[in-house]
Amino acid sequence: MQAEIITIGDEILIGQIVDTNSAYIATELNKIGIQVYQITSVQDERQHILDALAKAKARSQVVIVTGGLGPTKDDITKQTFCEFFEDELVENADVVRQIHELFATYVKRKPLPANLTQALVPSKAEVLPNQHGTAPGMWMKQDGVVFVSLPGVPYEMKGLMQDSVLPKLQETFDRPFIFHKTLLTYGEGESSIANRIEAWEDALPAHIKLAYLPSLGRVRLRLSAKGKDKDQVIADVEAQIKALMPMVENIFVGFEEDGAIEEAVAKLLTDMGKTLSIAESCTGGRIAQTFISRSGASAYFKGGITPYETYMKVKLLGVPQELIDKHSVVSAEVAASMATQVKQLFGSDYAISTTGNAGPSLGDSAAPVGTVFIGIAGPEGVITEEHRFGKHRDKVIQRATNKALELLRKQLVKSS
Amino acid sequence: MQAEIITIGDEILIGQIVDTNSAYIATELNKIGIQVYQITSVQDERQHILDALAKAKARSQVVIVTGGLGPTKDDITKQTFCEFFEDELVENADVVRQIHELFATYVKRKPLPANLTQALVPSKAEVLPNQHGTAPGMWMKQDGVVFVSLPGVPYEMKGLMQDSVLPKLQETFDRPFIFHKTLLTYGEGESSIANRIEAWEDALPAHIKLAYLPSLGRVRLRLSAKGKDKDQVIADVEAQIKALMPMVENIFVGFEEDGAIEEAVAKLLTDMGKTLSIAESCTGGRIAQTFISRSGASAYFKGGITPYETYMKVKLLGVPQELIDKHSVVSAEVAASMATQVKQLFGSDYAISTTGNAGPSLGDSAAPVGTVFIGIAGPEGVITEEHRFGKHRDKVIQRATNKALELLRKQLVKSS
Repeated sequence: MQAEIITIGDEILIGQIVDTNSAYIATELNKIGIQVYQITSVQDERQHILDALAKAKARSQVVIVTGGLGPTKDDITKQTFCEFFEDELVENADVVRQIHELFATYVKRKPLPANLTQALVPSKAEVLPNQHGTAPGMWMKQDGVVFVSLPGVPYEMKGLMQDSVLPKLQETFDRPFIFHKTLLTYGEGESSIANRIEAWEDALPAHIKLAYLPSLGRVRLRLSAKGKDKDQVIADVEAQIKALMPMVENIFVGFEEDGAIEEAVAKLLTDMGKTLSIAESCTGGRIAQTFISRSGASAYFKGGITPYETYMKVKLLGVPQELIDKHSVVSAEVAASMATQVKQLFGSDYAISTTGNAGPSLGDSAAPVGTVFIGIAGPEGVITEEHRFGKHRDKVIQRATNKALELLRKQLVKSS
Repeated sequence: MQAEIITIGDEILIGQIVDTNSAYIATELNKIGIQVYQITSVQDERQHILDALAKAKARSQVVIVTGGLGPTKDDITKQTFCEFFEDELVENADVVRQIHELFATYVKRKPLPANLTQALVPSKAEVLPNQHGTAPGMWMKQDGVVFVSLPGVPYEMKGLMQDSVLPKLQETFDRPFIFHKTLLTYGEGESSIANRIEAWEDALPAHIKLAYLPSLGRVRLRLSAKGKDKDQVIADVEAQIKALMPMVENIFVGFEEDGAIEEAVAKLLTDMGKTLSIAESCTGGRIAQTFISRSGASAYFKGGITPYETYMKVKLLGVPQELIDKHSVVSAEVAASMATQVKQLFGSDYAISTTGNAGPSLGDSAAPVGTVFIGIAGPEGVITEEHRFGKHRDKVIQRATNKALELLRKQLVKSS
């Protein structure tokens, strides 16, 4: 039982957009026990689409196609589907009605003829209603293979997946259970980890696979298992993790499936009834952003200051100028002062600070590019850590953000 | 002359990571006149990789493969390359030396045997040195088709593309010139735009293609052309844009190739010698982040405040409490006050403010979810705009960020 994803659109093949739809679809299919065999991105070109459909059909039982459903001339997915299925386009009355409603509510004018072409669908297709746009989804079957066509706009595609595609796939196919569990580790390279867990890895049963996923100072260890019996599959993976854990205890920071680290921190703060403020210089709002991007932030997040210019650390935060003169603005002392001051200013229980040089050129200090001091202030005082995060500006900012969240989590876990 | 990209890794097919490498590679190949025909993501599985290599070879002259080069057991790209090219792995002395150097400098210990397996490469491969990691790139040729294997870690892949792959492809192949120019429009749907430019679109010459790319309230119109004569190709596209422009003037906000809007704003501020500060509530640091993620921010960015809790707008920014009581915290009056106050506090020439409700639940005001007020303060005073950005929290934050940057740019262009 396997699926394929075909994404259609020249914009993907010239690199103008990153295909994020496929990762979403793959994740959701996996959750209902359908494995994705291949993802193929093809051009808005008739023969190319036909070839991709035929190849996918020969290999898989489900083919999810996104993109090429717009009302404009460059979009040819529907016409090509008709050719593939030896079908023709017919107007669907429900979709016509829905387009009129959408326009009356949101656009406040009558739809153009081009908008109404969205209601043309292959006659053999089952129409999947799109709550968020004018292009409907389509469900077709040929020789036992299910083909689904979805719009490429991510939130329309996601709505259709949740509302129609996933429930219908679950009805249609008998699927095995797929289970992934991923250990997040920090501070050691993949070869070195592989070396210390080699005996365990070699003894893994055939239905459990291990993968190493390195990125930005972290290595993720993913265990994947598949089987008919859900409870047994989970129990098998948990047993392997129990055996593995003593070997990686000192580098283990959490399970990816428990959510991103900011989610863990948000949950800890909310459960403890504690609040947070942030003074971030070199990370420039990225830490605040990770919290605010999630709903529920107002329960614990008081706010933040980004005192990017050195003098603003003095003026707004009240970091003593003498401290900066003596230790430089990129120093443990300034990080500690920033955290303490922002905590007091916002009246929060905890505070994070960052000061560093993200590069590429030196700033208001002699600290080498990549140097970042992180401060965490809490009820028991303030701690700081110094890090070197390399030479890529964006990487430095992201690693400093990750590390700050990890440090805060450690403190919260201690106090909770 | 066309290329294909094959990305290898189970983590892509289970949706654990989004494949950003392909968009980067496609963009860079396009710049040197090589079109990407297809992107294929396959599993870490021998037969699947062999099939993908054979199919790509039958269609294209260049095949760029990423991933599966790690030192751990789940990575099998090199072994599979050997099978495909009827070759065997041999140890490369240069890579051995480089691994020892990398470990001596950064890891401060001797490499493990697993690390040294990275120095094993197919005997027929030309090794491409990796400045950022232990897995070298490989360049192989078979029946006139070039195969390149690169590590999947994005910054290692990018380093190898720039240092070796792009220069070598330029030496190896005679390529046409490919040119894209993309108009960013704001405020009108794609059908409606298509309608008003229909006559122009139908009259486009065969070597120029138009694509509509809608997203978050914007539609991008991309013109693509290809030809032998670079100057002629550019002139043809520019002539078409000149003809198009009067039809879309009121919705045109810029060209994508001029860089992201934050880049345009950063350039304007830097050129004008003006500075910026930001008070962002509902966008929570994302606007500051867009500037700080780019180098050179210290030339114009003084800093920002995220007064997320309502009271912090009073305490830190000095927004009058009466104003909030009278108009609510999500109001034009509060947005104007926030922009004026943060501008004064940081002593900047310009300031951005945002206050709104990103949802999903109502906050400290009765404004419906999705309502955002944006303020721009400058030498000539302060302006505000009210927007409704829908119901998805992340979409609201991103659209508010985009809109704030557009408003600031308009003001800067007026004054410059």
